[in-house]
Amino acid sequence: MNIPTITPLNQPAMQAARERQNQLTKPAGSLGRLEELSIQLAGITGKEIPQIKNKVIVVMAGDHGVVAEGVSAYPQEVTPQMVLNFLHGGAAINVLANHIGAKVVVVDMGVAAEIDTDDKTLLRRRIGWGTGNMAQGSAMKREQAEEAIQSGIEIALSEISKGADIIGTGDMGIGNTTPSAAIACALMNAPAEKIAGRGTGVDDDGLKRKIFAIEKSLNVNQPNANDGLDVLSKVGGFEIGGLAGVMIGAASKNIPVMVDGFISTAAAMIAVSIAPACKDYLIFAHRSKENGHALMLEWLGVKPLLDLDMRLGEGTGAALGISLAEAACKILGEMATFGEAGVSGKD
Amino acid sequence: MNIPTITPLNQPAMQAARERQNQLTKPAGSLGRLEELSIQLAGITGKEIPQIKNKVIVVMAGDHGVVAEGVSAYPQEVTPQMVLNFLHGGAAINVLANHIGAKVVVVDMGVAAEIDTDDKTLLRRRIGWGTGNMAQGSAMKREQAEEAIQSGIEIALSEISKGADIIGTGDMGIGNTTPSAAIACALMNAPAEKIAGRGTGVDDDGLKRKIFAIEKSLNVNQPNANDGLDVLSKVGGFEIGGLAGVMIGAASKNIPVMVDGFISTAAAMIAVSIAPACKDYLIFAHRSKENGHALMLEWLGVKPLLDLDMRLGEGTGAALGISLAEAACKILGEMATFGEAGVSGKD
Repeated sequence: MNIPTITPLNQPAMQAARERQNQLTKPAGSLGRLEELSIQLAGITGKEIPQIKNKVIVVMAGDHGVVAEGVSAYPQEVTPQMVLNFLHGGAAINVLANHIGAKVVVVDMGVAAEIDTDDKTLLRRRIGWGTGNMAQGSAMKREQAEEAIQSGIEIALSEISKGADIIGTGDMGIGNTTPSAAIACALMNAPAEKIAGRGTGVDDDGLKRKIFAIEKSLNVNQPNANDGLDVLSKVGGFEIGGLAGVMIGAASKNIPVMVDGFISTAAAMIAVSIAPACKDYLIFAHRSKENGHALMLEWLGVKPLLDLDMRLGEGTGAALGISLAEAACKILGEMATFGEAGVSGKD
Repeated sequence: MNIPTITPLNQPAMQAARERQNQLTKPAGSLGRLEELSIQLAGITGKEIPQIKNKVIVVMAGDHGVVAEGVSAYPQEVTPQMVLNFLHGGAAINVLANHIGAKVVVVDMGVAAEIDTDDKTLLRRRIGWGTGNMAQGSAMKREQAEEAIQSGIEIALSEISKGADIIGTGDMGIGNTTPSAAIACALMNAPAEKIAGRGTGVDDDGLKRKIFAIEKSLNVNQPNANDGLDVLSKVGGFEIGGLAGVMIGAASKNIPVMVDGFISTAAAMIAVSIAPACKDYLIFAHRSKENGHALMLEWLGVKPLLDLDMRLGEGTGAALGISLAEAACKILGEMATFGEAGVSGKD
């Protein structure tokens, strides 16, 4: 696997942005996290006044053999159906991407059924017809995990070469809160019951099956917490690996990534395990209502922007977060300074 | 004072919106507060699928005699300077209003200096050259408090007649966290030290002076907690009364109001005291970093959308909140249903 170099954030650009924030016509610090965000974006892009114009949300889809354990409230056929819904513009992510003026890039990373469409915008990167059942053995081969990450890196680089200023992450895959929770359990050494939630809405029995399947997958596969690729291959998913690759690829090109919720955060944990330097390039959009997400964010040492009880995935939280990132850049770039506006400073 | 009639929220429209949310291609409830918000907006507007297109942020400016007590970090001349900054488009609210596509309406409710401009978009509704020093006596006469509210109602009705689908509230006024805190103390029967914060950034001594001034204003004036108009006149401000009027006026026309932070919430407390039915028409944009705001929101029994450590005012939080309200409406109106998209439901 060819992991590109990721540089640390640009400190002079951050310092310049910080100084500029203090000259704008408002009490210093009074825009709170928008100010911090603008400084992080300066560090990521290396520009004193970063701009976010071309916004892309990469939505990666994949299926999961572990659905055989009865871990999801919806049938597996929903994954390809929702991919078509994305292509037709009817899903929540389409509406929210339109709202913020972002392009949606839909990727089949490994859906378990043929996606019957002529739509050329669908990126076909299928690594397998869904993963294997991780409760019975490895979800995928190590080479497949590498391929998933490599695909994500390539897609990020391709979108960046076409002008993307920020990339949001999104996911679709019936059952994918289960491998995401397993990844978190493996890396954090946490019990499944602390991380697993109801996903799309399983009942109490479904939640028990889910916790059992996660524990079984960890026992059967013994993923190595010090090897992100091992964790991904044993208890991960194709779309999760792809999203980790998107994060690494964007970071290598000094482009910020707006990380969505539970599944994207599991991907971020894999990305940070493989390429720790990418963490500073990640902005966490929101705290999902899905159980365990708060603990995963804590493990990463990050604070999300929003907390709106959302738990849909698809990049819906990322879309809202991107709008805040754009606002943060505009504040830095478009506000008048005290000098320009003839406004008096502090007494 | 002529308080217009405010009807309760439209329950059939809310029920229809709730049912529609459950038919859209996502697990029921998975968009969390966006779904709740869309249902509230249906109830406010009486439309199963409300639309937010014309967005207006009303920024009201006023000065405060209590600055003589040394309660602010900035000199009073900043109020008219910032009004000019609003008119020239250089302030944070201009940038964020542009970001979300909203119009900014700037109102002089009682600035203590002539605002030297030919700009006809400035609404000149000066009720006085700043309020009196509430630490020495009443901030304004009861008739002036009525006039402030009446002006706000008229401005709301005027913007609504021009097509506003939502109104955000914003404020500007050096010293105005002091009367806002005093209003909260009076209505909640809370000590000043629990509510007062650092505003634009006073130091420890400034905060002590502020707390002392608030306590003194309450002792000198003895505002009647059961009479919102009495509280407004004794320890309020012209812009605060105006914003309370905007809220009441919008509610009377079934138009939602996005309430900004600390000062706007004090205005909301006055509005709700005078016209309790307006509360359901108010959406609280964010939790300000200003001390006491969380307690004020609790007293009102409301939960804000955002928590971004912001404390600027001007309607900056409201702007971000309006974007979420617009997103919520679009979700309801633009997403495909399970039937339309051919997506399978729950097992």
